[in-house]
Amino acid sequence: MADDFLMRGVEVTKKLWGERAGGQEFPAQKLAPEFFMRVAEFCFGMFWSRPNLDLRSRSLCTVAQLAALGKTDELKGHLVGALNLGITRDELVEVLMQTACYAGVPTAVSALNAAAEILKPRSDGKGS
Amino acid sequence: MADDFLMRGVEVTKKLWGERAGGQEFPAQKLAPEFFMRVAEFCFGMFWSRPNLDLRSRSLCTVAQLAALGKTDELKGHLVGALNLGITRDELVEVLMQTACYAGVPTAVSALNAAAEILKPRSDGKGS
Amino acid sequence: MADDFLMRGVEVTKKLWGERAGGQEFPAQKLAPEFFMRVAEFCFGMFWSRPNLDLRSRSLCTVAQLAALGKTDELKGHLVGALNLGITRDELVEVLMQTACYAGVPTAVSALNAAAEILKPRSDGKGS
Amino acid sequence: MADDFLMRGVEVTKKLWGERAGGQEFPAQKLAPEFFMRVAEFCFGMFWSRPNLDLRSRSLCTVAQLAALGKTDELKGHLVGALNLGITRDELVEVLMQTACYAGVPTAVSALNAAAEILKPRSDGKGS
Amino acid sequence: MADDFLMRGVEVTKKLWGERAGGQEFPAQKLAPEFFMRVAEFCFGMFWSRPNLDLRSRSLCTVAQLAALGKTDELKGHLVGALNLGITRDELVEVLMQTACYAGVPTAVSALNAAAEILKPRSDGKGS
Amino acid sequence: MADDFLMRGVEVTKKLWGERAGGQEFPAQKLAPEFFMRVAEFCFGMFWSRPNLDLRSRSLCTVAQLAALGKTDELKGHLVGALNLGITRDELVEVLMQTACYAGVPTAVSALNAAAEILKPRSDGKGS
Repeated sequence: MADDFLMRGVEVTKKLWGERAGGQEFPAQKLAPEFFMRVAEFCFGMFWSRPNLDLRSRSLCTVAQLAALGKTDELKGHLVGALNLGITRDELVEVLMQTACYAGVPTAVSALNAAAEILKPRSDGKGS
Repeated sequence: MADDFLMRGVEVTKKLWGERAGGQEFPAQKLAPEFFMRVAEFCFGMFWSRPNLDLRSRSLCTVAQLAALGKTDELKGHLVGALNLGITRDELVEVLMQTACYAGVPTAVSALNAAAEILKPRSDGKGS
Repeated sequence: MADDFLMRGVEVTKKLWGERAGGQEFPAQKLAPEFFMRVAEFCFGMFWSRPNLDLRSRSLCTVAQLAALGKTDELKGHLVGALNLGITRDELVEVLMQTACYAGVPTAVSALNAAAEILKPRSDGKGS
Repeated sequence: MADDFLMRGVEVTKKLWGERAGGQEFPAQKLAPEFFMRVAEFCFGMFWSRPNLDLRSRSLCTVAQLAALGKTDELKGHLVGALNLGITRDELVEVLMQTACYAGVPTAVSALNAAAEILKPRSDGKGS
Repeated sequence: MADDFLMRGVEVTKKLWGERAGGQEFPAQKLAPEFFMRVAEFCFGMFWSRPNLDLRSRSLCTVAQLAALGKTDELKGHLVGALNLGITRDELVEVLMQTACYAGVPTAVSALNAAAEILKPRSDGKGS
Repeated sequence: MADDFLMRGVEVTKKLWGERAGGQEFPAQKLAPEFFMRVAEFCFGMFWSRPNLDLRSRSLCTVAQLAALGKTDELKGHLVGALNLGITRDELVEVLMQTACYAGVPTAVSALNAAAEILKPRSDGKGS
C-alpha cells in the first residue's frame, strides 16, 4: 500500500515535470534523500492522486497557496508543472495577481517577480 | 470607471452570495463602512471580474489561499460562495486536505474544522 | 541598570494604561509571572522608552504591526493605550484600513472587527 | 510498508496520548476521516518514529513549533503528550517563554494562555 | 471616480518617490503591467490619500508593517519614501528595532539588515 | 541586575559560538549596535540562561522554531551553535525533516537547503 502511494505519486509527478521529476537538484536532497521520498508519497501519493478533484484544479490551488505563503522557490517549480498540464500563462498571472487581495500587495509582487522568470512576457509587449 | 469596478464587483458577488451580498453583518462594517466598498471594488471589481480565468478557478484558488493563511472566517464565506457556483462539497474537501502539504497539518485541520460548519458530512457517513 | 529598564518601562505603561497596567489578568500571568516582568523590561524599558521617536509614533506603529500580524488580543490592548495617548478613533481606523494593502483584506477585516469592540462607532452613524 | 508506517505511527501516538489517541473528536474528523489516517502515517509513521532523535526531543520541538506558529489548539494536545512522556510542566513553560525571542511577545503570550488550560500553576503560587 | 483614485494615488507616490515613481523596474511589471496600476489605485488612491491621518504616520505604519511581515524588498522602497517625507534615519531605526517586540528578534534583524542598505550609518560611528 | 542579564547572556553565547560571539558581522550591527546588546540580554540573559531547561533542549527548540518560521539566516547560526553543544548532525536533520508536519513541506525544504551549507552530508553518501 505504501508502494501504491509511491507509485501513484510518481505518476502525478511525471505529468507535472516529466521523467526527470525527482532528480537530485537541491542541496537538501544530498543531506536528507529519504525526506524527499516521504514527502512525495505524502503530497503526490496521498493527496494529488486522489479522485474527486481534477489535476488542473489541484495545480492552480497549489500555485495559489505557494504564492500566498511566499514560497517563491517551490512556486517556480509548480508554475512549470502547471504549464505542462496545459494551464496557460495568462491564467497563472491571474491567480498571482488575485493573491494581492488575500495575502497583501507585497506578497503578490514577490510572486509575480518570481513568476517572471518562468512565464515569458507576451511578445506583443502587452503583458497580462 | 470606478463605477465600472464597483458594478463589475457587485455582479461577481451576486454570483457568489446572491442579492444579500454586502449586507452589513460584521462589527467592522459599522466602524468602517467605506472600507468594505473599497475592498469590494478592489477584490471583485479589479481582479475577480477580469477575463482570462474562470470563476470556478478563482473560487477554488481563494478557498485554497484562505485555508493556507488560516483565515477561517473568510474561508467559511468563500466556501458558501463556492457551493453557489456549483463546486461540490467533495471538491472543496480535497482542496482543504491538500493544504496540509504546503501549509502544514495544523493549518489544514483548522480549515477542515471550519469547513465542517458549512459542508455537511455525507449522509452515508463516509466523509470524503 | 536593569532596575532602570524596569522603571522606565513602568513609566511608559502608565502613560498607556494608567496605574493598573501590569495587573494580573491573563491565565498566562499565573503560569509564568516572571515572564511578564521580563517582557515589560524588554518592550517598554529597552525600546518604547528610548529617545529619537515620540510615543505617538511608537503607538501607531505597534497598532499597525499587531494588526498586520493578526494578534487581535494585544491589538485591543494597544488601541486602548493609543486612545489614552490622545490618538483619535478616526486615526486608528485609518491605520487598520490601510493594513489591507500590506497584509491582505482578511487580516484588515479581522483587525477592524476586533477594533469595533474598543472604538465606538460615531454617533452620527457615518462610521469612518 | 504503508502498513508499517501506520503501525509505527500508532505506536508513537499511544506513547503520547494512550489508547484513545485518534478518537474521532473534531468536526473535521467526520468531514474527512481518511485525512487523519494519512497525516498520522505521515507525521508519526514517517517522522516521529524514525531513529536518530529521542521522543523527548521530538516532543519539545513540536511544542516549540506549534507555539511559534500560533497553532494553540494543537499545542494543547501536544502539551498533554509531552507531560505523558515525562517532560515536566516547568520545562514546557520554559520552551513557551523562550518563544518570545523568536516569534515575538504576543505569540508567546498566546501560547502561555493556551498552556494555562493544560499546565496547572504550582500550588505554592510561585508560577514558573 | 476611478480616475480620481488614480490621480490621488499619483499625487501621493510623487511625494514619496518623486516623478519617477511607478517606473517599470521589476520583472513583474513587464509580466503584469495593469496589476501595478490597480494596486497603486488601491493603496495610494483609496487609502493613503484619505484624510484623517497624516502622511508621516501612514509612512511610519507602512514601514512598521513591512518590517513585521518580513517584506524586505518593499521595506527598502518605503524607507526611501519615508526619508523623502522628512522622517529621519534615527526615527526609522527606532521603528525597526521595536519590531523585535512584536514580530521576534530574527524579523527585526532582517529588517535592520535590509535598512542598512538605505540608511547610512552615522559618520560618527555611533549608530542609533 | 541588568549587568547580570548581560553577563549571563554572554556566558550562554560563549557556549554556543565561542569567544567571537557577538562580533560585528551584519550590516545591521553598524546601523543599530545597541540593539544587539539589548536582544542578547533579552534572549540569552533573560531566557536561555534560566534554570529548569537544559541548553541542549533550548538549542533544539530554537532550531525547530527558526526552521518553522522560515528564518534561514538565523537558523544557520543556531545550527553551528547546536553542533558546538554536541548535538549531532543527524539529530538536527531529524528536527528539520519533522518541520514538514507542522509548517508544511516547502518550509522544511528551505530549512534543509539552508542546513546543507552547515551540516556536511555524510561521506558514505547515505545522507540521513
